[in-house]
Amino acid sequence: MAFIKTPVKGTRDFLPKDMALREYVLKIMKETYQNFGFEIMATPCIEHIENLTNKQGGENEKLIFKILKRGEKLDLENVKEQNDLVDSGLRYDLTVPLSRFYANNMNELNSPFRAFQTGFVWRADRPQKGRFREFMQCDLDILGEKTNLAEIELITSVVTFLKKLDFEGFKIKINDRRILLKMLEYAHLPLEKADQILISLDKLDKIGFEGVREELLSNGYEEENIDAYLKLFKQDASNIKTFCETLKMEQEVVDNLEEIMRITSQNVEANLVFDPTLVRGMSYYTGPIFEIGVEELNSSIGGGGRYDKMIEKYAGISVPAAGFSIGFERLILILNERGFQIPEAKEKIAYILKEKEDKIFAQIKKEREAGKIVKIAYRNKNFKFQKEKLEADGYKVIEW
Amino acid sequence: MAFIKTPVKGTRDFLPKDMALREYVLKIMKETYQNFGFEIMATPCIEHIENLTNKQGGENEKLIFKILKRGEKLDLENVKEQNDLVDSGLRYDLTVPLSRFYANNMNELNSPFRAFQTGFVWRADRPQKGRFREFMQCDLDILGEKTNLAEIELITSVVTFLKKLDFEGFKIKINDRRILLKMLEYAHLPLEKADQILISLDKLDKIGFEGVREELLSNGYEEENIDAYLKLFKQDASNIKTFCETLKMEQEVVDNLEEIMRITSQNVEANLVFDPTLVRGMSYYTGPIFEIGVEELNSSIGGGGRYDKMIEKYAGISVPAAGFSIGFERLILILNERGFQIPEAKEKIAYILKEKEDKIFAQIKKEREAGKIVKIAYRNKNFKFQKEKLEADGYKVIEW
Repeated sequence: MAFIKTPVKGTRDFLPKDMALREYVLKIMKETYQNFGFEIMATPCIEHIENLTNKQGGENEKLIFKILKRGEKLDLENVKEQNDLVDSGLRYDLTVPLSRFYANNMNELNSPFRAFQTGFVWRADRPQKGRFREFMQCDLDILGEKTNLAEIELITSVVTFLKKLDFEGFKIKINDRRILLKMLEYAHLPLEKADQILISLDKLDKIGFEGVREELLSNGYEEENIDAYLKLFKQDASNIKTFCETLKMEQEVVDNLEEIMRITSQNVEANLVFDPTLVRGMSYYTGPIFEIGVEELNSSIGGGGRYDKMIEKYAGISVPAAGFSIGFERLILILNERGFQIPEAKEKIAYILKEKEDKIFAQIKKEREAGKIVKIAYRNKNFKFQKEKLEADGYKVIEW
Repeated sequence: MAFIKTPVKGTRDFLPKDMALREYVLKIMKETYQNFGFEIMATPCIEHIENLTNKQGGENEKLIFKILKRGEKLDLENVKEQNDLVDSGLRYDLTVPLSRFYANNMNELNSPFRAFQTGFVWRADRPQKGRFREFMQCDLDILGEKTNLAEIELITSVVTFLKKLDFEGFKIKINDRRILLKMLEYAHLPLEKADQILISLDKLDKIGFEGVREELLSNGYEEENIDAYLKLFKQDASNIKTFCETLKMEQEVVDNLEEIMRITSQNVEANLVFDPTLVRGMSYYTGPIFEIGVEELNSSIGGGGRYDKMIEKYAGISVPAAGFSIGFERLILILNERGFQIPEAKEKIAYILKEKEDKIFAQIKKEREAGKIVKIAYRNKNFKFQKEKLEADGYKVIEW
């Protein structure tokens, strides 16, 4: 079989210039989150097929890269269905593995547990701009904290990280899953259809209120109820309390959301806005939800929320939890599009030799010990090209 | 299907204390290798099955985690052999992907190209102490450098890294594949059987000269030749030149090896020894080979050598190359066994609240900005346990 030069579809080779940016962003992220007391943990890339296909993962379960059984366990003669062939798969997110990790290791973890994990995940999605089949996720989670201290710390951490990157032009949209449900209730829309209705609402950015209305109509909901529902969104949302008055929302939910916004605004200069149209895809959220919106993207570069019931559904252990995930690949995409330059901390020198002499090694040793980045190489035939490439990479070229 | 709490066989959950050490070692490694002008690059974890099974990978090709085709491409009805089912697999090393990467991107890379990559690789091996199915490799390679500048820089970089970790009790063993072959020639052993004979020699540490002799005898080589061969190793190896005199080794090979040892010893305080019994497993080496031996391990924690023909065999592009790979998991194992403590750079404070007050947030903000690691949490029912766990993690606990 012939050797194939290009990477597998939907995956990427990362050139040194790509990795320099990725490494820089990860370094700032790690420094920031560690200052907030988050502890780095990690799970394997390979996960049990049983855990990946237990119906909690929604659409992602259709996109799994499945791994063939090995050796004697693989019986090609008697294959009836896919599950006869596979025993594991690549993780499609970091949340399923976190649930397993927590169930497996909880006695050794701090409580509350402030978890920070970065890692590749895989989804056999249709590749498109900024969407890959192998991509990195960066998740913050606080497990075991039932109060809004979790949400406050999560949002403060993420905003602090983005500020340290000098990333501007974003806002944090906040809502609460319970407000979303109360609005359905108010409009006499069926709560058991909440997921379907909210999927329509989630398309608001793309199809507008008229589009959402049409979709809800075509899904068979009462016109009167739909109009009552959509009318709610026309209210002024600048004050949560006022917005929620008509809904007869529990005071506790409103106070909680207001407190998150008030304290977080004191902690960091963040553009925090209550956005009653914010849905977030996953139905496992139980309380506050949030999302990072950036000017140039219709969608977000990260989001999260409270999911007090999720780990119980996966792993059978009841623990209140909230998380915030950064869409690392999108952040990198935007940084590149904005022409972001990595602050160069170190001097770079390239010694280009005609011939080797012992004293050059003493020289570069001294410079490397002083923290400089030093390359040493022989003069190529095309020295001009060699030199230009090094200079483009920020090296001072010294001919020796 | 029930949720499984433990990780897939041969893979691991990494607790915060595990990750703290891994992250620290990687940080020191990155800092060091970057100072030597190595550029971080990365390849996907998923590789084309064609590239993984082209017979260059030896035994590793039997250990591949293969990935099932997806969607319409998977035709369960007409399965005849495994290859009808799979189109890709998890990489079993970083070398095959490096060859593909170089073939795919060479026009955008510096020449010579100093590559540094870390990443997980997968082998469906029998798990045992210090050997996993998902494990990290850390590879340095210099592509396009035909002189021993490559070997000198590689060994100097790796030794500098280990010294920065305060890692002691290791030596760098050096040999040359051409000396290994010349010794066979001298003893009239068949060069076309070199791989088989060297596999026997490689067991010297475990089975001794008598064991090697028996194995060679049972493999059908002439007793007289075997004895002539093994007698060579009884010579004094403290001087390469003297050792090689009987062999009529090309002067160039001897000079080259002596120069590598001389200059590297000037660069770093390293215990460099010529070891004519050093084999290194892979048959793709063409020149100098080296290995890091540590006192408490029978085997090495890393090694490498020159492989001028390998990339051509894989990817069809002729480029001289040398590499040095660290066995990351073994290094971590030894550091743990030696009781290695990470130098704590940052002060850690945990505020434990009875109730929340706004002013606590102003307080922790100031401390985090000053670079301290600050946790904030409510008092658990079992405060004593909470406090002890935090203190064991190095936190100063402040009750608020």
